[in-house]
Amino acid sequence: MTTVEELKLRVRELENELIKCKQKRCAEEDACDNLTHHRPRIDKMSAEVVDSNPYSRLMALKRMGIVEDYEKIRTYTVAVVGVGGVGSVTAEMLTRCGIGKLVLFDYDKVELANMNRLFFQPHQAGLSKVEAAEHTLRSINPDVMFETHNYNITTMDNFTHFMDRISRGGLQEGKPVDLVLSCVDNFEARMAINTACNELGQIWMESGVSENAVSGHIQLIIPGETACFACAPPLVVAANIDEKTLKREGVCAASLPTTMGVVAGILVQNVLKYLLGFGTVSYYLGYNAMQDFFPTMSMKANPQCSDHYCRKQQEEYKRKEAERPKQEVVEEKEEEQIVHEDNEWGIELVSEVTEEELKAASGPKPDLPEGITVAYTIPEKEEAASAAGETVEETEQSLEELMAQMKRI
Amino acid sequence: MTTVEELKLRVRELENELIKCKQKRCAEEDACDNLTHHRPRIDKMSAEVVDSNPYSRLMALKRMGIVEDYEKIRTYTVAVVGVGGVGSVTAEMLTRCGIGKLVLFDYDKVELANMNRLFFQPHQAGLSKVEAAEHTLRSINPDVMFETHNYNITTMDNFTHFMDRISRGGLQEGKPVDLVLSCVDNFEARMAINTACNELGQIWMESGVSENAVSGHIQLIIPGETACFACAPPLVVAANIDEKTLKREGVCAASLPTTMGVVAGILVQNVLKYLLGFGTVSYYLGYNAMQDFFPTMSMKANPQCSDHYCRKQQEEYKRKEAERPKQEVVEEKEEEQIVHEDNEWGIELVSEVTEEELKAASGPKPDLPEGITVAYTIPEKEEAASAAGETVEETEQSLEELMAQMKRI
Repeated sequence: MTTVEELKLRVRELENELIKCKQKRCAEEDACDNLTHHRPRIDKMSAEVVDSNPYSRLMALKRMGIVEDYEKIRTYTVAVVGVGGVGSVTAEMLTRCGIGKLVLFDYDKVELANMNRLFFQPHQAGLSKVEAAEHTLRSINPDVMFETHNYNITTMDNFTHFMDRISRGGLQEGKPVDLVLSCVDNFEARMAINTACNELGQIWMESGVSENAVSGHIQLIIPGETACFACAPPLVVAANIDEKTLKREGVCAASLPTTMGVVAGILVQNVLKYLLGFGTVSYYLGYNAMQDFFPTMSMKANPQCSDHYCRKQQEEYKRKEAERPKQEVVEEKEEEQIVHEDNEWGIELVSEVTEEELKAASGPKPDLPEGITVAYTIPEKEEAASAAGETVEETEQSLEELMAQMKRI
Repeated sequence: MTTVEELKLRVRELENELIKCKQKRCAEEDACDNLTHHRPRIDKMSAEVVDSNPYSRLMALKRMGIVEDYEKIRTYTVAVVGVGGVGSVTAEMLTRCGIGKLVLFDYDKVELANMNRLFFQPHQAGLSKVEAAEHTLRSINPDVMFETHNYNITTMDNFTHFMDRISRGGLQEGKPVDLVLSCVDNFEARMAINTACNELGQIWMESGVSENAVSGHIQLIIPGETACFACAPPLVVAANIDEKTLKREGVCAASLPTTMGVVAGILVQNVLKYLLGFGTVSYYLGYNAMQDFFPTMSMKANPQCSDHYCRKQQEEYKRKEAERPKQEVVEEKEEEQIVHEDNEWGIELVSEVTEEELKAASGPKPDLPEGITVAYTIPEKEEAASAAGETVEETEQSLEELMAQMKRI
């Protein structure tokens, strides 16, 4: 027979255990709902050198003479499209750097098969990638604003919404984002981002990792000025390595946390250099892991680009360049911290592939540095148009037709 | 007055709430003690392409023709010394790749000031780095074996224990580890690792990130064959950038998740290439983030190296090389997958620093590729010896004297 005293003791014991469990949950886990149990929000970045300051090592970049105004990072919004092996690490790096706002797009779920890349953890399997990412990122840095969209940007309605968020989803609602990062793993999604950014005149950066997991690249695209994704097929490093960078249906691509971590690292480094104005922003930086070879280059926009808006942006860019006095052009270039090195690749590769093999693998190719070739060749314009039964006047085609055309490629 | 019935009801309520709290902890957090709530251990790596297989994208490296025997990774042990910005990401990448065993060394605690680098989270502030890292890594991949040491390797007793664990802490207890990775942030710890590896003939890799956060490097050291840390001062890329790579007391070094992520990525990539035998293992790979410049090189051991065991390993290496028939040498080199390119750096740098500035900054320097200089110069042997009041016979000095000498440098 249990006495009242014994029961009261048991109640007290259980109450204590429950409090301890709740405290432990909030102290240990990274999924605590009550954000006050993590670090409080910080109104102003401080350079104070104390262990409790999450920004001390970033603000030190000013004292080291690298960045003039680090706090400016809080005013920027970056959209990350694709929150997989590269996109999730990209988002984490930007979050830890204290970016103002992140807009994340993905429609995938976390799977155990993703555990060979950084960021996601086994207990998140089954959650949507954007939901899981937001949860983790918020607990890492509550100062960052997050906006997530759990959808496929390539469907009609979603594409319209995607365009709207790129053009109006900045920190100041109604203003465009400052940069779009493509971290997707397929051609269709890249083309959708390309189409949107060409139409909006939105500067973006492309990233990619090869199917065999041992090469990757990043690329800066300034509509009208540099080659867009439709101006030239994606470039790949072709020394000893399979040329295919495009994800094929039904093929299980290999992936490595190393290659994806390096690509995310050089991508976000380029973002920081671009937004905070330090160093030389790369137009194209490749990573060949087999030989530790990092080709750089830049490519001008193609006047015959199949994208109508790209050609329109090129005209706009030419008009502005012509209007600008010579002196001003030089000054602005210096401000943008972008160094044009059209012919100084500065890198040589001892290729084990013969010139003939390269030619056979890539077909007619543009004038590229040794060791680089194109992933696929663009069909002749006339052939493509006639095959699709379209008129030459395809510049006036609707978005719907454009999407349909993309799917046929 | 509380009745027995009311008390019993309260006990049942509390018991249910406690169960729920414990279940929630295990479902949400990454710090669950009960590993059965995460994914079960896997006995044999499978190449099956299903969402629930955490190794499918790694095993795909075999199908892609990159790695011959990926499963071999489970037989290797890697020691990571320093679990900070580079070491923690290094350990995470190796964990996600399914390495057999990790031996972690660090004596620091997690601080909010570390949150600008990947891996640690704010709720871990105050925990020891090795404890926090093991917790997270175990939940990411329960197949990996972990051994952690929460101590400073540079004190006498700890150094002896460190040597013991390097020489006997392999997967098969009593066997040495397969590789030691230096991810420390100071000169003294690097010298301790160098001393231990020279004495043991243990192959290791060095890594480092500059104080201004925008450059870094990795280096492979094979005792007796390649330059050890005492053979030549650490090399830094000197184009436009401060030469100091050594952490100075009282200076708050800047750091970036990008640079540290890239350095960890190229480090672990080199580890995978070395252990699994694919691609070209780099002897030295630098990363200059300001200009996206990645110098490579190799350096032979210095016959005048101040480290007694280095000189001893050099003799041993020479003896073995001389004994080996010519044909065999070539074969073994191929097996090791290390390409010797003594004079083919393959990289040019358009330096904005004049030759005179480089010379002034680095003093008498070895024959290095353009754009690379040494971080500091070694004092003349006679001067150093007389200043310390030591005899020329310093090859017989004790470990204690060696440590004291290191501190004076």
